[in-house]
Amino acid sequence: MTNNDTTTTTRIEADSTLPIIRMSREFAATPEQLFRAHTDPELFARWVGPDGMDITVDVWDARSGGSWRYHAGREGEEYGFHGSFHEVRPDRLVQTFSYDGEPDGVALETLTFTDLGNGRTRLEAQSLCDTFEGRDAWLASGMEVGVEQGYAKLDRLLEDHAV
Amino acid sequence: MTNNDTTTTTRIEADSTLPIIRMSREFAATPEQLFRAHTDPELFARWVGPDGMDITVDVWDARSGGSWRYHAGREGEEYGFHGSFHEVRPDRLVQTFSYDGEPDGVALETLTFTDLGNGRTRLEAQSLCDTFEGRDAWLASGMEVGVEQGYAKLDRLLEDHAV
Repeated sequence: MTNNDTTTTTRIEADSTLPIIRMSREFAATPEQLFRAHTDPELFARWVGPDGMDITVDVWDARSGGSWRYHAGREGEEYGFHGSFHEVRPDRLVQTFSYDGEPDGVALETLTFTDLGNGRTRLEAQSLCDTFEGRDAWLASGMEVGVEQGYAKLDRLLEDHAV
Repeated sequence: MTNNDTTTTTRIEADSTLPIIRMSREFAATPEQLFRAHTDPELFARWVGPDGMDITVDVWDARSGGSWRYHAGREGEEYGFHGSFHEVRPDRLVQTFSYDGEPDGVALETLTFTDLGNGRTRLEAQSLCDTFEGRDAWLASGMEVGVEQGYAKLDRLLEDHAV
């Protein structure tokens, strides 16, 4: 692969024995750039979520023990999300995640950034739920579209040297 | 049961299909008292952990989005723990939990306080791990002793009207 090959898609899998969603994707980016894209609130708001969503970051304290909150708006609809940063380190983020519309559902997310050399990095994300039903409902919600469109936006920010 | 019946033991179970430890125990306390015992740092330090451990709270911000850190010392040995408060509300706490000695292991803990009437409350605690191996290693570590002795200390604080 070369730095120009950015037409990757995200691998999204439900674990067969654990209530976990695993996602894996490569980026034409260094680990430092992916870390920045996930921890800098202005950058994060420019790529996260499906196309056409306006992201507003309400709370953002990207350090171990900090917390975050943002909402996404489109055509008069609004969706809020919040959580805590359990751990923020250059190669790994661990954070909780809740959708405001279902606040008792909490996922524990672990993101790792693995340097593949040649300016490429693999992002691996694991979302741990406490029931298979909750995990499967989330998968069935169409979250892949938002994930895929969000990462495509991040690709374009990287191409534009905006990260 | 009457208010005098405080010789309860903790039910600790490994879920058969999920990497979860579930604990359940009744206390001669109101939900408000149990909430206070888990969110007031001075109170918490007086009961958590096995007998003979000195607890020092290093960080404590018991609100949704806050974080916590404490260490336990006994006979020159020291064990640190830290995490984030994802949610703090009167009937439910959701928090992350890591042992400093194994920082990549993160559990998501959910505690609920259910009013049973007559001054009794049931505490239910769920610890969600991301592997069965991690869950089982924790169970095999002798954590039940610390849990049981800690809750017995909390019983005594409640009897002494210290909560």
